[in-house]
Amino acid sequence: MTTPFSFHLIATDKAARAGRVVTAHGEFATPAFMPVGTQATVKAVAPEEIVRTGAEILLANTYHLMLRPGPERVAKLGGLHRFMNWNRPILTDSGGFLVMSLSLLRRIDEKAVTFRSHLDGAMYELSPERAVEIQRLLGSDIAMQLDECIRLPATREDIARAMALSLRWAERCKRAFEGAAAGHALFGIVQGGDDPALRIESAQALTDMDFQGYAIGGLAVGEPQDVMLSMIDVVAPALPVDRPRYLMGVGTPDDLIEAVARGIDMFDCVMPTRNGRHGLAFTRHGPVNLKNARHAEDPRPLDERSGDPATRTYSRAYLHHLVKANETLGAMLLSAINLSYYQALMRGAREAIAAGTFEAYRAACKHGWEQGDIPSR
Amino acid sequence: MTTPFSFHLIATDKAARAGRVVTAHGEFATPAFMPVGTQATVKAVAPEEIVRTGAEILLANTYHLMLRPGPERVAKLGGLHRFMNWNRPILTDSGGFLVMSLSLLRRIDEKAVTFRSHLDGAMYELSPERAVEIQRLLGSDIAMQLDECIRLPATREDIARAMALSLRWAERCKRAFEGAAAGHALFGIVQGGDDPALRIESAQALTDMDFQGYAIGGLAVGEPQDVMLSMIDVVAPALPVDRPRYLMGVGTPDDLIEAVARGIDMFDCVMPTRNGRHGLAFTRHGPVNLKNARHAEDPRPLDERSGDPATRTYSRAYLHHLVKANETLGAMLLSAINLSYYQALMRGAREAIAAGTFEAYRAACKHGWEQGDIPSR
Repeated sequence: MTTPFSFHLIATDKAARAGRVVTAHGEFATPAFMPVGTQATVKAVAPEEIVRTGAEILLANTYHLMLRPGPERVAKLGGLHRFMNWNRPILTDSGGFLVMSLSLLRRIDEKAVTFRSHLDGAMYELSPERAVEIQRLLGSDIAMQLDECIRLPATREDIARAMALSLRWAERCKRAFEGAAAGHALFGIVQGGDDPALRIESAQALTDMDFQGYAIGGLAVGEPQDVMLSMIDVVAPALPVDRPRYLMGVGTPDDLIEAVARGIDMFDCVMPTRNGRHGLAFTRHGPVNLKNARHAEDPRPLDERSGDPATRTYSRAYLHHLVKANETLGAMLLSAINLSYYQALMRGAREAIAAGTFEAYRAACKHGWEQGDIPSR
Repeated sequence: MTTPFSFHLIATDKAARAGRVVTAHGEFATPAFMPVGTQATVKAVAPEEIVRTGAEILLANTYHLMLRPGPERVAKLGGLHRFMNWNRPILTDSGGFLVMSLSLLRRIDEKAVTFRSHLDGAMYELSPERAVEIQRLLGSDIAMQLDECIRLPATREDIARAMALSLRWAERCKRAFEGAAAGHALFGIVQGGDDPALRIESAQALTDMDFQGYAIGGLAVGEPQDVMLSMIDVVAPALPVDRPRYLMGVGTPDDLIEAVARGIDMFDCVMPTRNGRHGLAFTRHGPVNLKNARHAEDPRPLDERSGDPATRTYSRAYLHHLVKANETLGAMLLSAINLSYYQALMRGAREAIAAGTFEAYRAACKHGWEQGDIPSR
């Protein structure tokens, strides 16, 4: 492929933006939600079903893939797209966040993060250079810099130290990414915890380094929504308008709409699939817990007005039965139903932004969620 | 629906038969393999995927559905077809076999089998009349009589007693089934263990009762293949040629081909889906264990000549990765791949019988299996 990576802003509506991103494996429209394909598979959803939900890009986790099956093996097998039978764009995280949440005995120094695999206890070293190398071996369209994502609450000193280290690692990642094939991009990650000044310092320093896109990291780690949104309010205006902005690991449908209102273009989150596996459906009327006995004899689908066939077809009673009986098909259907809802939500946002009606769309979404689920028969 | 249930013999090749069965929910071609949808779902396979494998009829288990969600509830929700989103024929077993293998504290007398649910310990009574009532509430196209399926080895006396009880229950089931809607059928079940005389006695008594189809029960319960085949050799000629013959719970690809050669028309077995969930694929070249490390870097699909897209598309390396990582997609793909193989095997048998070349087909299948899997690179 020789198409260069690019971002095209199509419309804005106040701070909200609609655009499209061109990559080596085709385009995706923004605001975009990326399903999470942790171990080279979106859990319980087949690739053709992911396409059917409307997803145009997915995320895969470097941490998991570096441990199993290993990036060199994936490269030997023709890269991640071919390996997992997904021919559209893929974004890979750097591995840093999951090293810090999942691995054992980690140690961070200037050079790298060293850790034991949670699978077999083997030692690994993940440097900024290795993080980029792994992502190039996987062949992802969008790679992320290695960063240090610290837990909140933390002292300003600790937040500042981690932010500064992340900036030095950003530079090293950028150097390591030089010469990447056309259509492939590297994004920098804004850190700085809940400190506005540190966030702005991080955003400006990364902007000076000129990345092809910018992520906001270190949020959605348990802080209240207003803290997260106030950080976006601080960071988004400090980022260049002509580059995509990605809010990592977010979130609920409401989080997405609020972040879109503040100028975010890309999201990823395990929430639709993880909750789907646990019997929770996201709908226009808010979350519906299918474990609840009130669904046991309800012949109605989750939402007969949905554009998604499964959401319109399967009765609540059947979904309840599958969840209670712990049947895999329950996880399959609800994961796909939730991904379809997230995609419909983003599609609605894109259309509203293009039409200049995003405020009304945002209000309508919130009204639906607040109304709650339609009463049982 | 007003189409009556019927069986049409299309071709025979020695003892092997090709035909079609017409039911209230459409037709299916025989020899037919029925995927098992235990709890109103074929484990890890969505209905549209089951259709894609070529299956035209599936089996659901009365024992499981009577416990959860309950036949009255399924009836209230419009019947099993609607409940599980499957608009083609469904055969239900009578519940008897699984009561005897799964339930606690069972007691069998002339009237009924009484047992405790393995789910919650509640007491249930399953009489011939209730077994038919449940299957009518579910709305299955083909219902099975309640029988007593005893374990082998057993004394001739015990086998004879269970066979005689099954005949009396067959009569009671037949009376209970009177007045069923057009297109719905009840099959009798030949019992008699491994005793040829008892098997023939059972087959003749059931034939005198004039069922719409006949099953051979009490086989595939651990006996050697030659015992099973010799019982088919005894029973099949004692059954009327103008009714479908169903060998319950069988089996391996080789079991199916050998039984087809002996005049069997219908099969069901959990083997393709259960083995798929455990990492085993059935192929033209015999079983392939994808847990085996030899597949870890093998870019080739399971069978590039297969008519099934998943079998042709996904690399052995990817399937190995999914199985090792315990990812649901591994169970999903391998279950569907195995069902596709079973359907292709039956389609090949039907075509060969119609062409008068079944012997050559049988030999070619065996040659492929004996050849073993293609060597790794």
